[in-house]
Amino acid sequence: MTVPVAINEDKLSETFAALANGTRRAILARLAAGAATVNELAEPFDMTLPAISKHIKVLERAGLIVRAQHAQYRPCALNAAPLAELSSWAEQYRPIWESRFDRMDDYLHELQHRGRTGERR
Amino acid sequence: MTVPVAINEDKLSETFAALANGTRRAILARLAAGAATVNELAEPFDMTLPAISKHIKVLERAGLIVRAQHAQYRPCALNAAPLAELSSWAEQYRPIWESRFDRMDDYLHELQHRGRTGERR
Repeated sequence: MTVPVAINEDKLSETFAALANGTRRAILARLAAGAATVNELAEPFDMTLPAISKHIKVLERAGLIVRAQHAQYRPCALNAAPLAELSSWAEQYRPIWESRFDRMDDYLHELQHRGRTGERR
Repeated sequence: MTVPVAINEDKLSETFAALANGTRRAILARLAAGAATVNELAEPFDMTLPAISKHIKVLERAGLIVRAQHAQYRPCALNAAPLAELSSWAEQYRPIWESRFDRMDDYLHELQHRGRTGERR
């Protein structure tokens, strides 16, 4: 298994960093139901506008949110494209989590055997 | 679309944070080919042992790496289970990135229309 070279590693790091926060993931879940203004987003989350704006900026920089430039309320919309890239990245590991080696007992047994014999594959 | 309540939000945040680094993702890619000692991991990455150890600790805390406790070299092995959870999380958004709304032209047009009329859905 190899990582495809086409993946933009910096962009992927930014996507992962943006998603490493429960509030930001909740904002995306809300936007999956439709575009929303910052005010609309702040309401259900019981957060101050500056706090929610900060989270939105992180999501915007990561390309997960796009905002209308000329509309009066500059509503936020979900851009799911980076999530598709993230999903492709994770799917590379599907054969591993679906294989029998996913059963940690077998895996650890193999590791401990290697440790005793000093054998290297 | 709703986020399943079964997801452990803190654990998911830790997984995302651990993956927000190209070196750590490269370590996982290397471990997908088989278990490796810290020395073996450090070699191809041209990193010092303390630097690689720090990355391994982050991955271990996030449950993405398990280490044999009693083996002489304490080899590292990939645990793909958190990647399966991450994939499930991302897959929720597949209908969005596959839908016509993924075409940003349509989406932005809709947003700008809303902005002009002040209409809210």
